Amino acid sequence: MSVNPACHPLRGDTLITNVHLACMHPDQPPAFENAAVLIERGQIVWIGQVSELSQVSADETFDGQGQWLLPGFIDCHTHLVFGGSRADEFEQRLHGASYQQIAAAGGGILSTVRATREASEDQLFASAKQRALTLIAQGVTSIEVKSGYGLDTATELKMLRVARRLGDELPLNIACTFLGAHALPADFAGNAQGYIDLVCEQMLPKAVEAGLVDAVDVFCESVGFTLAQTRQVFETAKGLGVPVKCHAEQLSNLGGSALTAEFAGLSVDHIEFLDEAGVKAIAASGTVATLLPGAFYFLRETQLPPIDLLRANGVPMALATDYNPGTSPLCNLLLMLNMSCTLFRLTPTEALQGVTCHAARALGWQQRVGSIAVGYQADLCLWDIAQPNQLAYQFGDLRPSARWFKGQLQDL
Amino acid sequence: MSVNPACHPLRGDTLITNVHLACMHPDQPPAFENAAVLIERGQIVWIGQVSELSQVSADETFDGQGQWLLPGFIDCHTHLVFGGSRADEFEQRLHGASYQQIAAAGGGILSTVRATREASEDQLFASAKQRALTLIAQGVTSIEVKSGYGLDTATELKMLRVARRLGDELPLNIACTFLGAHALPADFAGNAQGYIDLVCEQMLPKAVEAGLVDAVDVFCESVGFTLAQTRQVFETAKGLGVPVKCHAEQLSNLGGSALTAEFAGLSVDHIEFLDEAGVKAIAASGTVATLLPGAFYFLRETQLPPIDLLRANGVPMALATDYNPGTSPLCNLLLMLNMSCTLFRLTPTEALQGVTCHAARALGWQQRVGSIAVGYQADLCLWDIAQPNQLAYQFGDLRPSARWFKGQLQDL
Ligand SMILES: [Zn+2]
Ligand SMILES: [Zn+2]
Repeated sequence: MSVNPACHPLRGDTLITNVHLACMHPDQPPAFENAAVLIERGQIVWIGQVSELSQVSADETFDGQGQWLLPGFIDCHTHLVFGGSRADEFEQRLHGASYQQIAAAGGGILSTVRATREASEDQLFASAKQRALTLIAQGVTSIEVKSGYGLDTATELKMLRVARRLGDELPLNIACTFLGAHALPADFAGNAQGYIDLVCEQMLPKAVEAGLVDAVDVFCESVGFTLAQTRQVFETAKGLGVPVKCHAEQLSNLGGSALTAEFAGLSVDHIEFLDEAGVKAIAASGTVATLLPGAFYFLRETQLPPIDLLRANGVPMALATDYNPGTSPLCNLLLMLNMSCTLFRLTPTEALQGVTCHAARALGWQQRVGSIAVGYQADLCLWDIAQPNQLAYQFGDLRPSARWFKGQLQDL
Repeated sequence: MSVNPACHPLRGDTLITNVHLACMHPDQPPAFENAAVLIERGQIVWIGQVSELSQVSADETFDGQGQWLLPGFIDCHTHLVFGGSRADEFEQRLHGASYQQIAAAGGGILSTVRATREASEDQLFASAKQRALTLIAQGVTSIEVKSGYGLDTATELKMLRVARRLGDELPLNIACTFLGAHALPADFAGNAQGYIDLVCEQMLPKAVEAGLVDAVDVFCESVGFTLAQTRQVFETAKGLGVPVKCHAEQLSNLGGSALTAEFAGLSVDHIEFLDEAGVKAIAASGTVATLLPGAFYFLRETQLPPIDLLRANGVPMALATDYNPGTSPLCNLLLMLNMSCTLFRLTPTEALQGVTCHAARALGWQQRVGSIAVGYQADLCLWDIAQPNQLAYQFGDLRPSARWFKGQLQDL
């Protein structure tokens, strides 16, 4: 029996109607008012005007009452899994203690490494879950989580398993990033090359073999690892078929971004000290510039990332919390929207792209999440706002009024 | 029949036991571990060690499970009641529009005045209630609310009635501050003196007569009102028996703080440009210095308030959101704890005093709220933290696990 599709409405599980769409997709208009979205098996299968609803039918209809529907937000750079707290160190610093004094007293990143090694997998999961639930309540549906507080094979794998489990147990897409080259563990003091060899020969291959690595990251910095060491890790990642990204140009201009571009990396992150040559390199490679205003704020940095150059060269700018206990203990992606506008002078549209389509690209997920478009996963949040720019302007009193993950309406 | 009180335990409605106390009272130790608090008719009537519980009995007992109990927080400087939104203006500014262009397009504070005049009392209440509920969820039990977007008698009174109603309908102590001298309304352009005469002869007396004024505030600034005009308003307030406070030294050092000290004012607020003579004046008068890091951040101010001088002279420092649509659309007092430490280098203890005992003093309420002490109102929040310094260090993932207002346990 032949069927004329024009005569039969498209069927779906869920129709969200009477909404304004901020699609956050390069090929869609920025705002699509009085619209509806049809979802089938977790995917967006149709977008149209409310006046075109005769084209579709659905098992369930959700009336958006004229509110705004946006893609679920993506926090594309976090260190969400860690043990311990650095609150005492924060207080000591405010009482005048120097970094040297804090390190001598057992503080700094190695104190987090110690606490993360000591914590059980369930303890790490419990604390990370609380942080993930906090982000979910802000409209987040995807989170990247890095390892890097283990600095030994067992603990790096433990951290990545905890990250994967967040995605198994919570309504979240989780991207797992291996960041073994985050800092030098105490037992390799004076032997950074020996540690990088261990990362490349043992830690990373084992993590990849366990299916725990979606990308590989390196902290390429004068106080981190050299350009040559970064290249060694990137070559290893390339050999294992895993994409790379880089903590680059945060404190100085070492060239980590150009190196990442050479490997067609997903993103370069921080980049306060990135110069024009580096901007042109990542523009050519299609690498995302991930801005981290929380760390900029917390460290009282004054060097601004080269926003005008990034704009002029058409580099997609993502935005993330960099949530971590040392330099950005700020578990709030909505605050980053405001901070990116206030501190970095992004426009509200740029800020919102930074936590949707461009954040998706920073994870290599730009065909799957971060936009409202046919074929995309139905990760959506409804907001009771007059315009999307409110999300970047006002902070503290906005929460999603409804949330869908893979097309399923969630309890708030 | 005679009764020996030593043999009969002290009775109360509610006993909160197995808690650590951060009393936030000048005469109490900073931390009181393994403690209990007895509440009777909304007041704290006993504080002791868990080992001393035989001294008391209560109708209901709440087990704090080793968490920390703090006074409910006090946001002692807000402009919570207003109409409209300034999100479009925020966006225009980020697209390069100047203040002049925004004012010419009907933006700026006078757009908020217009929207506030047009809004019904119920509309103003509904939006202010949402903001107040947001603060309540952060552990706030007292809020100061200013008028100042009416700039005519009817609307100033309307704003103050809305503020009072927040205290009637929500579990909050509300302090109503008359800020008629906030800006010059359009119909008095070029005639600031005429407007101040109206404030002193009509607006303020009527507001006081209606029982709507707990304090009087003036925006004393080059772009606000002169020192002489501020004095005129303060003289009027004094004649009406109402205490004063001042938006002072935010953009320049006009001497508003010294003037406020002359009137034994409750607080001077902002004070980035306050000099040593001004600090000594408010130290002598017992006036609180209210720091507003949200406005400092949002305006990208670089002039820091004179923290070291305030410390050296023993001036109590309060901390508030300054929540308002123009210069601090940040409805989050916990963020101010972090910002005051990060941006102003307050210690966590100073930050917490700033939203408890010293904020109470900025409202003249230091005998009643803001501390855990016998005779104080039982406005209390329980926090699942290892140390109080966490409240200033980490942002985003902390919420009270229990909340009492006037001794009543609240739904969260
Ligand atoms: Zn990072
Ligand atoms: Zn103010």
